[in-house]
Amino acid sequence: MTEHRYRRRVQFADTDMAGIVHFSKYLCFVEEAEHALWRAAGLSIVPPGGEISFPRVAASLEFHAPLHFEEEFEVLIKIAERTRRSIRYTTQITRGETKIATGTHTAVCVRKSPAPMKAIPIPDEIVERLS
Amino acid sequence: MTEHRYRRRVQFADTDMAGIVHFSKYLCFVEEAEHALWRAAGLSIVPPGGEISFPRVAASLEFHAPLHFEEEFEVLIKIAERTRRSIRYTTQITRGETKIATGTHTAVCVRKSPAPMKAIPIPDEIVERLS
Amino acid sequence: MTEHRYRRRVQFADTDMAGIVHFSKYLCFVEEAEHALWRAAGLSIVPPGGEISFPRVAASLEFHAPLHFEEEFEVLIKIAERTRRSIRYTTQITRGETKIATGTHTAVCVRKSPAPMKAIPIPDEIVERLS
Amino acid sequence: MTEHRYRRRVQFADTDMAGIVHFSKYLCFVEEAEHALWRAAGLSIVPPGGEISFPRVAASLEFHAPLHFEEEFEVLIKIAERTRRSIRYTTQITRGETKIATGTHTAVCVRKSPAPMKAIPIPDEIVERLS
Repeated sequence: MTEHRYRRRVQFADTDMAGIVHFSKYLCFVEEAEHALWRAAGLSIVPPGGEISFPRVAASLEFHAPLHFEEEFEVLIKIAERTRRSIRYTTQITRGETKIATGTHTAVCVRKSPAPMKAIPIPDEIVERLS
Repeated sequence: MTEHRYRRRVQFADTDMAGIVHFSKYLCFVEEAEHALWRAAGLSIVPPGGEISFPRVAASLEFHAPLHFEEEFEVLIKIAERTRRSIRYTTQITRGETKIATGTHTAVCVRKSPAPMKAIPIPDEIVERLS
Repeated sequence: MTEHRYRRRVQFADTDMAGIVHFSKYLCFVEEAEHALWRAAGLSIVPPGGEISFPRVAASLEFHAPLHFEEEFEVLIKIAERTRRSIRYTTQITRGETKIATGTHTAVCVRKSPAPMKAIPIPDEIVERLS
Repeated sequence: MTEHRYRRRVQFADTDMAGIVHFSKYLCFVEEAEHALWRAAGLSIVPPGGEISFPRVAASLEFHAPLHFEEEFEVLIKIAERTRRSIRYTTQITRGETKIATGTHTAVCVRKSPAPMKAIPIPDEIVERLS
């Protein structure tokens, strides 16, 4: 399981006074797709016990066309690269045939306590399910 | 006026269950700094009349350290590049001496109607005040 | 069409550092259900032309149990009362058999321009479809 | 310390496509004011150690006039009632002489672990500082 298609409708609270989806919301959209990919692989990004977490170290987006209220769109997310401690995803957001946005973001596996957070190898079960 | 320092405190609604600021909120922080820069230059990003708008065509962030509830931070925003129709900003977010995040985003000047939005030259008054 | 059941999953960005859904997000949930009710009735809360709008004049919520990340929940929304110019909804949020929250909110039909907004009778077609 | 005045400017991300502040954001505004009241009293709503939390059991708002982008407003928050385990606040949001919204919300002091959360008496130091 290394990619997933996630569908979503634009909600009113996603829009801003320019009448289109606020640019910060796209990071929520790609994150929702990422977590849906994990669920499709039988995982949760917040594993039971909660000792590890996956904070982001980088995120970027290019916006090609705006999204409007009530439009349905799809996020295609793919694992583009995996190192021992990190996962880099690429995402493509489309509305029908129209390319809306493309992006990439990288999450690192960390041990939450004792503070401060410290990068650790991704647990084996996660590696296997996301291969 | 080509740069500005914007101060802000982390609010509870900025955090997520990982106990740190959600990564999408950083785009709000850099946008708040951008609009504060415009106000400092005697401008509003939403000019009276409302015929033009400044949607984003790209945004990227690197995260170096997390921000926590009630921490005070500063966004230093600079105009890095200006073309006839676009402005590219760079931003640096710090908490005291700690580097939190660095980013860049690009906004394009568009005419909102008739739909669809169309890129147009940035009005002269805006160019002058942001020089 | 005077009631609707809307299903939704808690997303990571809905949570706060207390590890549960932030209380402001419940207003988004009831609004999403309201707009889903309108779509089910063949309507959009943002009608073509965009001369009218439905700002809220009141909203209240009681919280009975918390919602957590990735939980699925249902919003049952009902039109409780309709006057010439306003609609009052009641909402009940449940996760399986567990009662999560109950609320009510009232929206008024307004003409957006010329400013300021002015309350006007709800158009006949909307009244018919929401009866 | 039983009341506090909190000032804030409307940010772009607070608005929606109706051109005004989204109604869910008002709950963020009253929460920001509540936490500012606690800071003014020498407290944090998230005390060190983090064993207790203050989830909301009720919240309501009446909206009298809209807020727009870049407007400055004030939230006057008062502790209206305190029981052994709960605090009820009232809030009034104004922009200059214009009444924008009035509300009330109630938070309960809970012990976070072991799960599930359980209501407990508000610690003495907090009671003293909020008297």
